[in-house]
Amino acid sequence: MLRLDNWIRNNKKERPILSDKLRLGPPVKKPGKIVCTGLNYEDHIKESNLAATPKEPILFLKATSAISGPYDDVIIPLNSKKTDWEVELAVVIGKRASYVEETRAMDYVAGYLILNDYSEREFQLEKGGQWVKGKSCDTFAPIGPFLATKDEIRDINNLHLWLKVNNELMQDGNTSNLIFKVPFLVSYISKFMTLVSGDIISTGTPSGVGLGFNPPRYLKKGDVVELGIDGLGVQKQMLI
Amino acid sequence: MLRLDNWIRNNKKERPILSDKLRLGPPVKKPGKIVCTGLNYEDHIKESNLAATPKEPILFLKATSAISGPYDDVIIPLNSKKTDWEVELAVVIGKRASYVEETRAMDYVAGYLILNDYSEREFQLEKGGQWVKGKSCDTFAPIGPFLATKDEIRDINNLHLWLKVNNELMQDGNTSNLIFKVPFLVSYISKFMTLVSGDIISTGTPSGVGLGFNPPRYLKKGDVVELGIDGLGVQKQMLI
Repeated sequence: MLRLDNWIRNNKKERPILSDKLRLGPPVKKPGKIVCTGLNYEDHIKESNLAATPKEPILFLKATSAISGPYDDVIIPLNSKKTDWEVELAVVIGKRASYVEETRAMDYVAGYLILNDYSEREFQLEKGGQWVKGKSCDTFAPIGPFLATKDEIRDINNLHLWLKVNNELMQDGNTSNLIFKVPFLVSYISKFMTLVSGDIISTGTPSGVGLGFNPPRYLKKGDVVELGIDGLGVQKQMLI
Repeated sequence: MLRLDNWIRNNKKERPILSDKLRLGPPVKKPGKIVCTGLNYEDHIKESNLAATPKEPILFLKATSAISGPYDDVIIPLNSKKTDWEVELAVVIGKRASYVEETRAMDYVAGYLILNDYSEREFQLEKGGQWVKGKSCDTFAPIGPFLATKDEIRDINNLHLWLKVNNELMQDGNTSNLIFKVPFLVSYISKFMTLVSGDIISTGTPSGVGLGFNPPRYLKKGDVVELGIDGLGVQKQMLI
């Protein structure tokens, strides 16, 4: 577990120095649930060809068994041809939230972290029914490298977020373009289910995912994915 | 916690005698995930008008925060007009299962219990996107009253399951009509995500849900729902 105060002390906010022998695990204990938001950036909606801009947030759950550390290898599932990336701003809940109003929603937020919402597009979209099959594969939810507490982020609505594959910039967005913003999402979700301390809400991804290219571009063994969000550090994963 | 051996000893397998002052909680610790199966009985597919018979199981996740005891009151969510019932045979995983073949799948099953997969149909189907909004409301997953170990159920493919609302029989099915059976489901799901001890797989509901009536029939405050499955006991909930 890497503590944020050590990061600050060492002035190495954007990248931890790790020994080859150390593994950096997820920065929060396994949450009760990961509630993800789909299609929450206009440019990603266009590239996805999935739907019109939603009137209400599109929600889905990602299995918590998918959680891994920010530098862990990511396992391409057996028979996968369409493993894709999604850099996302994620919110960690700090206390029990049920039917919370939007104006009070931030009281229930502990802080933020990066979540790379890996997605197998064939499993997600071509096997019938709901998205869970392509969203919950093992290692498909790297989180971290650290939890930034709420007070450490000056403006949650103006964070640059980016993702590179093999050093090529793929995603280059800003949380200012979120359709449904953090307080609205916390409030909205809390009207369907109680959020408890440690639960994670992921807010959706901007454009630049593999599915959005023509032809689509998916990950293969040996690829290296790097991603970051202002103030939340950097993740780096190798696909295996 | 009610132990199955006490039930057997007392010859009260089908209904526990409880003091008014005792609450029977869920019979398993909070699982890591609840993987539910949609549209897994032909008669329920017809009444739902949702889709043709699926070629592969339709999966969705139900938030574990929805779990409650088998006799707990069930909370109709604020602004809900379409709270519905679904009696289901649920499987509890006994050990880590990843890419398990169907022929070996039963080795990974600890046992069985009843799950009432309460569903708010407007939240599930009319608010855009995925089903999670209508499936994960607090108290929407009563489980129990006990976990029957695998050896206690003679034939998992021939269990009568039923549900009454205010003493009127609504659902009256048999697990012999499951389209995708337990070993197939365990194997299938294990190819998308690792199942770990305590995880719950719910296998879907037969016909007779409120959505299937013309006009539909939904639950209101004060309604009493009773349900049971051969060898797995009986649940009873009041809607509040």
